[in-house]
Amino acid sequence: MNLIVDVGNTYVKFAVFNKADLIYKLSFKLNEFKIQYKTLKKSFPKLEKAIISSVGHLSDEHVELIKNDLIVIELSSNVNFPFKNDYQTPKTLGVDRIALVCASVNQFPNNNVLIIDAGTCITYDFVTHENHYLGGAISPGIRLRYITLNNLTANLPLLETKQPNNIVGDSTEASIHSGVVYGAIKEIDGVIDQYREDYSDLTVILTGGDSNFLSNQLKNTIFAKSNFLLDGLNFILEYNSK
Amino acid sequence: MNLIVDVGNTYVKFAVFNKADLIYKLSFKLNEFKIQYKTLKKSFPKLEKAIISSVGHLSDEHVELIKNDLIVIELSSNVNFPFKNDYQTPKTLGVDRIALVCASVNQFPNNNVLIIDAGTCITYDFVTHENHYLGGAISPGIRLRYITLNNLTANLPLLETKQPNNIVGDSTEASIHSGVVYGAIKEIDGVIDQYREDYSDLTVILTGGDSNFLSNQLKNTIFAKSNFLLDGLNFILEYNSK
Repeated sequence: MNLIVDVGNTYVKFAVFNKADLIYKLSFKLNEFKIQYKTLKKSFPKLEKAIISSVGHLSDEHVELIKNDLIVIELSSNVNFPFKNDYQTPKTLGVDRIALVCASVNQFPNNNVLIIDAGTCITYDFVTHENHYLGGAISPGIRLRYITLNNLTANLPLLETKQPNNIVGDSTEASIHSGVVYGAIKEIDGVIDQYREDYSDLTVILTGGDSNFLSNQLKNTIFAKSNFLLDGLNFILEYNSK
Repeated sequence: MNLIVDVGNTYVKFAVFNKADLIYKLSFKLNEFKIQYKTLKKSFPKLEKAIISSVGHLSDEHVELIKNDLIVIELSSNVNFPFKNDYQTPKTLGVDRIALVCASVNQFPNNNVLIIDAGTCITYDFVTHENHYLGGAISPGIRLRYITLNNLTANLPLLETKQPNNIVGDSTEASIHSGVVYGAIKEIDGVIDQYREDYSDLTVILTGGDSNFLSNQLKNTIFAKSNFLLDGLNFILEYNSK
């Protein structure tokens, strides 16, 4: 069995795979790392290998904790990947984006694929049908948009994420919900349209914490894949264990 | 002559109007207020009236400074406006948005008008051809998007605003430029398209600090009006002085 450790900007995720099947997942805050790891290790005694992907701040102590028990791959741009990387700055390519591209190459080989990960950030990643990764884009995610409107202006409140009733917000709160949520939807649909102009045969994957919230609202047809990043990490672990 | 004092989230603007003509404008940081006001007052001895619009933090001391010399209107939702306000929370309707609506009613009467102000925030405001203000939306402006990507994530750099070469960013910097700039462009074009579906006869105004940067890149036809907010404030001052 494989353990996937995905350290994001806000949360840590543990996932357990039995071969290619995701059988368990858990999300928690970084300060709970030790206790959550110990509990997990007891529950899944057959864990053998682990992959650690971190875009956040995971300490050496936490990494050593896992290395004491399991064979560990720490994901970086130096690990082997099943795609040709045309990114000009591979060392600063976020490991989460690498994992998404691996999942794409594994599940949609020979397709032009645009992967949209709507989480803390909205990342766009494009892989050609020849498995060339060309790059993409990074913009603020939905929560970041709400937070920055409050943090960096004088008078706007911090709101919980909510589906707006109408594109014309008839109050300050409704205006913020419209600007943030419809703003992100129009951005995503517009970016997909632009890619479709350049690559008529395009598969679009939507994943990340906000993918359920967003998927029904897009005018474009997309595949919603909530575990795409975890699938990609498990694939990298297997690919590098052979 | 009229003095317009527009206190935004980041900068203060002074503008001098001779009747409906803008003859002078100046932008500076809030801590320079006193010295800039004294210099201006000497340069324009014929100033009689002033309007103060503040979405930021202007102190009573600064307001008194102007009141000692000029007849002053402090813009709030209690001032008289030439439009019917259907906003449910008029007291929290930003005075900058009120000014934009006034400019629209003055310059484009009997039109359905969507006003897009691309500054610290991107605000959307919609006025019907019967001069009913219905509301709109607020989303983070281009600089806020760059800042929040750096502030609220672990690994992304703070970049200066730059036109991306390609929607597919082939480096982390190029990805951020694409996500922020194309993200905002796709959002704005998508919002305009949505309004056009609902109101086929629509006039679109683009104003604000980023309007020059954005105007050539939108697929929709818009009127770029760099002084729309100042025009609106001057109109409110005249409208309330009669």
